[in-house]
Amino acid sequence: MQPDLSAVMVRDADVRIRPLARHTPVFTSTSINRAAGVEVHFKCENLQRGGAFKIRGASNLIFSIPEEDLPRGVVAFSSGNHAQAVAIAAERAGTKATIVMPVDAPRGKLDATRNHGARVVTYDRKTESREAIADRILKETGATLVPPFDHPLVMAGQGTAALELLQVIPQLDALIAPIGGGGLLAGCATIAKALDPEIRIFGAEPERANDTFLSLQAGRRVEIPQPDTIADGLRAPQPGAFTFPVLQRHVEKVLLVSEQEIRETVKFLLMRMKLLVEPSGAVAAAAVLHHKLPKNVRSIGVILSGGNLDFEDLARY
Amino acid sequence: MQPDLSAVMVRDADVRIRPLARHTPVFTSTSINRAAGVEVHFKCENLQRGGAFKIRGASNLIFSIPEEDLPRGVVAFSSGNHAQAVAIAAERAGTKATIVMPVDAPRGKLDATRNHGARVVTYDRKTESREAIADRILKETGATLVPPFDHPLVMAGQGTAALELLQVIPQLDALIAPIGGGGLLAGCATIAKALDPEIRIFGAEPERANDTFLSLQAGRRVEIPQPDTIADGLRAPQPGAFTFPVLQRHVEKVLLVSEQEIRETVKFLLMRMKLLVEPSGAVAAAAVLHHKLPKNVRSIGVILSGGNLDFEDLARY
Repeated sequence: MQPDLSAVMVRDADVRIRPLARHTPVFTSTSINRAAGVEVHFKCENLQRGGAFKIRGASNLIFSIPEEDLPRGVVAFSSGNHAQAVAIAAERAGTKATIVMPVDAPRGKLDATRNHGARVVTYDRKTESREAIADRILKETGATLVPPFDHPLVMAGQGTAALELLQVIPQLDALIAPIGGGGLLAGCATIAKALDPEIRIFGAEPERANDTFLSLQAGRRVEIPQPDTIADGLRAPQPGAFTFPVLQRHVEKVLLVSEQEIRETVKFLLMRMKLLVEPSGAVAAAAVLHHKLPKNVRSIGVILSGGNLDFEDLARY
Repeated sequence: MQPDLSAVMVRDADVRIRPLARHTPVFTSTSINRAAGVEVHFKCENLQRGGAFKIRGASNLIFSIPEEDLPRGVVAFSSGNHAQAVAIAAERAGTKATIVMPVDAPRGKLDATRNHGARVVTYDRKTESREAIADRILKETGATLVPPFDHPLVMAGQGTAALELLQVIPQLDALIAPIGGGGLLAGCATIAKALDPEIRIFGAEPERANDTFLSLQAGRRVEIPQPDTIADGLRAPQPGAFTFPVLQRHVEKVLLVSEQEIRETVKFLLMRMKLLVEPSGAVAAAAVLHHKLPKNVRSIGVILSGGNLDFEDLARY
């Protein structure tokens, strides 16, 4: 039985992950505030080690593994950023990582994972089950599974992004983050509400991967068909068993953005802010820049959650 | 008669420009240190207001104009970043800017200059003299000329980039910046040597725009034919009358990089650091990442001087 996610766990994570996770910068731009019609503070997880927030959750779990279990290694399945994060954290912890990745994951993400000494096992997203493959490896090795989002230690680790943001900018009307499986937003909402019960929490999803939007509407976890969106990190077909109740408790609304709005935002952040943000990482910014927030939100923290994409994909925009 | 550039002038500039110029972040990455074989600290002037360091020098000069002269406006000629900077600083000072720009300047730079209320006068780099056009406007209007580099107040303003860098990272073996007309490096070298007489100063130029390299070798200002390099901000055909003696005094060596090395570095900084840096802004980084430094330099501050380029140009890389 896992403990429930709490603000204390986020604070503990904030100490535990420090050998590895960077305090990423927060950027504010008056010209972008004008464009967005709201005071926007970007938390730049694209500048995080491994190029995404995922190192926070992965290292929080891996650094919590009892010493006697470490030699049996860790296993993860991931479309990319979580894979790199687990590889980096396992390397630092001195244990072996096996990562189950879709064969069509961005080349850069596959390479980066291998570069950190992980063994990569690829599978076909259309015909194979990554859970089944991971299960088999777990049984063979006795390794520890590092889930991409649905684990309290992973959620708590991700929450440190919001903790850092609110340490720099303590007064915010609202906070918004992209939702894949919901680990990032669950962790961030938990610590943000503990620091300021009045803060409003928003999530952002692609229209084409609106599983959490539908789930919150239905009041239960809804599974959608395998989503087809350029935001490859947000393709989880349903929120997690652990993340969903946390999102239900804290999230005021999930804002939906189109593929075109995501693409425009990646380009806007690149050309105007000089920051490379991947499609998944730009979804929350897309919602804000395309005026999807309620009008009375005057200041917001926006998590730019990652920056890993292939140059060839970017050049096609 | 202009006063000689001094460290005190850089410190004065540091106060004067503050309403406008940002303290840009300094980024360090252990994986990049490994790749470069030296401890590298990037000063991110691509994240500066206006997307380049130029706002520092432009605002230092414009904010020094006597109040009775302000209504007659300011004039500048520039291939781009200086143009935007003068437009922004003039807007803030409440005066009118006229900018003489090459007709083939990047579209984004032309637009950004106009967006800040400046009047843009275009000319053909092959057949017209921007100096002659600027001269005519100055005579007609009585405006103040804001030179792109060859003025002590402009050089002093640019030097604040190094002052900020050394406030964050006080112990550095060396400092390197790109050289166009030499204003940035002259200002940076002056304050850096005042703070630490032992610090070693390097410049970086494209092989195809090696006017300062040749001038330092010859011991006098050498003019080269109009350089053809993707580093469009470094096309000044000779160092300035004010900047050259300062560079002669402080610069140990000018490191040269090929067009291919510049392109690779732009891509490397984008994909690995998630930072958009324009070709001119990446020239100093290119020299360091391509191992052109003397072997005994163990730590260096590298100025990433700007981040303005057209998406279409980037996509072609």
